[in-house]
Amino acid sequence: MAQGDKSKCFRNFSAGPGALPRAVLEEAQQAVSELPGTGVSILGLSHRSRLFRNMLDETEERMRRLVGLPRDYQVLFLQGGGTLQFSMVPMAMLPAGAVADYVVGGYWTRKAADAARHHGNVRVAWDGGDCGFRRLPKADEVLGKADAAYLHYASNETVEGLQFRSVPRASVPMVCDASSDFLSAPLDVRELSLVYAHAQKNIGPAGVTVVLVRDEVLAQRPSGIPPVLDYRAHAEARSLLHTPPVFSIYVVLLSLRWLEAAVGGLAAMGRINTKKADVVRSALRNFTHFYKHDVEAGFESIMNVTFRCPTPKLDALFVARADQAGLLGTEGHRSRGGLRISLYNGVTLDDAHAAAAFLEEFAHEHRSARIVRSAEFVTST
Amino acid sequence: MAQGDKSKCFRNFSAGPGALPRAVLEEAQQAVSELPGTGVSILGLSHRSRLFRNMLDETEERMRRLVGLPRDYQVLFLQGGGTLQFSMVPMAMLPAGAVADYVVGGYWTRKAADAARHHGNVRVAWDGGDCGFRRLPKADEVLGKADAAYLHYASNETVEGLQFRSVPRASVPMVCDASSDFLSAPLDVRELSLVYAHAQKNIGPAGVTVVLVRDEVLAQRPSGIPPVLDYRAHAEARSLLHTPPVFSIYVVLLSLRWLEAAVGGLAAMGRINTKKADVVRSALRNFTHFYKHDVEAGFESIMNVTFRCPTPKLDALFVARADQAGLLGTEGHRSRGGLRISLYNGVTLDDAHAAAAFLEEFAHEHRSARIVRSAEFVTST
Repeated sequence: MAQGDKSKCFRNFSAGPGALPRAVLEEAQQAVSELPGTGVSILGLSHRSRLFRNMLDETEERMRRLVGLPRDYQVLFLQGGGTLQFSMVPMAMLPAGAVADYVVGGYWTRKAADAARHHGNVRVAWDGGDCGFRRLPKADEVLGKADAAYLHYASNETVEGLQFRSVPRASVPMVCDASSDFLSAPLDVRELSLVYAHAQKNIGPAGVTVVLVRDEVLAQRPSGIPPVLDYRAHAEARSLLHTPPVFSIYVVLLSLRWLEAAVGGLAAMGRINTKKADVVRSALRNFTHFYKHDVEAGFESIMNVTFRCPTPKLDALFVARADQAGLLGTEGHRSRGGLRISLYNGVTLDDAHAAAAFLEEFAHEHRSARIVRSAEFVTST
Repeated sequence: MAQGDKSKCFRNFSAGPGALPRAVLEEAQQAVSELPGTGVSILGLSHRSRLFRNMLDETEERMRRLVGLPRDYQVLFLQGGGTLQFSMVPMAMLPAGAVADYVVGGYWTRKAADAARHHGNVRVAWDGGDCGFRRLPKADEVLGKADAAYLHYASNETVEGLQFRSVPRASVPMVCDASSDFLSAPLDVRELSLVYAHAQKNIGPAGVTVVLVRDEVLAQRPSGIPPVLDYRAHAEARSLLHTPPVFSIYVVLLSLRWLEAAVGGLAAMGRINTKKADVVRSALRNFTHFYKHDVEAGFESIMNVTFRCPTPKLDALFVARADQAGLLGTEGHRSRGGLRISLYNGVTLDDAHAAAAFLEEFAHEHRSARIVRSAEFVTST
């Protein structure tokens, strides 16, 4: 992280927790001091107050309107991130003796499948490891088998920079980990029985997880689950089974207001996000002899642009120089190395142009390194 | 919640999420805009950044120093509140065939015992229901039986306003739910195998739970627990098993800095908190014909002062008038009614004096109601 410099403009390209819109941060900041008209900080607001109940209701209503959520889905605000969902999903949907199909599209869905094995039988329906996680299943491919209790996949693979263009096809109920692209574009939720997303990419701070779950999933709950791990108990308590993360939910509410009022909804947000990714990828394409990436055409994420310089040394130099230039969080995931520019809702088009300009400048400055170190370059791709 | 009025001084007596110190809120507010010297909001700070690792380390070090924590305890920062601990404790410490003893001292410990039954055999070692939750076990009483895997109790019962003066006596490992008095006074942690506390009373916003756990508990972990519900996995990952609630942990850090630098440690904090409770209880004692309470002498909580007016109608009027006067959150828990003034670390001695003044004023104004409605008064106590 760069040292502060008042004259410098900082831009946050972190893969998460990631950038939030400036307008959201300003209102959140005010509320930490005092929630306007209440006399209390949002951090000291009772979750049992009418004020917070109204906030929770408004958050749910806006979520429903933005997503176009049918009435037979519940909206839950939970804790524990995507990782706790890795357990709550099979606890709710994988009865003893049944099997669940998992699409292992990257680092996080492998984790999800591993966690589910603690709760029941898991089958890998598609394994991206076979192609080095360079792509996802094709759109016309029917995933999983008809005897599965459900099929689990992630709409966006944050580490690898892969994204489904649309909801995949399966003949069984589908569960989607939408943690890293939730509310970044329209979502065809009717195809899904359960969607979960932690907030810290596009809609809030770390600490709250949104679950959209169809009533028929709640009806099939197996017995013996403690209430805190049971979707139905949370649905019955309308997300007040125990003290919810009040502040994090409030920031989600601010993000939803911003998405509707300032952006104009998910279709508009999707167009902006696509444009941002195009701007960054155009810069990479102008220097294909310098910047390399692993992702096959048609599977590129509009949220996480992953790429590499000719050498790991240049990757490290890129991060350091970007940091100095105020472009923060460009390092790749520790499991994969390389570089990553994340373009969540809070990143502006102007930020994307700044990243593109830096990409071009860095490549110009260091392309001689490619010639000198061409042998190293070839082996590293 | 009262409508805002710029000329009015608001004081937050909410039972939780509760008041935080003004100095902590000011720094937290600044960090939401920009964490000084970094260029990013604390809400967009990567949990994998060196900066956050340093924050986490400092939070742990300060916690160790304040509590006087021996080296054979781990400090964990988890999600899911006390309620998830109700499950994680028996998952870790209650093997199949064993039995755990629970001290049911109030509303929350009854919940803890009920939740533990989903995981194994639970015995109620002491039931406050027998005395209407007017007191806790006496200090010389040895609790539970020698064959129990552990004994669980809460150091402070938030709903009833009961508090142990010291760690109780038991012949087995003890687990303490310290959610509502953690870091409000010194804690004899050596007597305890595991202590958990959500942050939203004394040290931070809702969304982070602190666990202090002795290494020997981690060593006895049964198999088959998914990592996200397993203390050992969190300890091994040093609270970075998955994305932690970055902002909430930062506010805890600010609270710990404040406790050390501004207050002078837990002994000093305990003296201030005792003084605050004395101020409020003195006012109640000046009007024993008007204000009643259920708590036996020697078991009064210094965190939550519970009491009643002569009638439920007057209770409701009290809350409304207090609200108008800027004294917020005085209603009792919905399960018990009555009134409650919570005096967490963030509540100042000045706030306590304001509460006392209001108590006297309200009793003066309404004591005639006691005489008129004396029949109702007698039956309601």
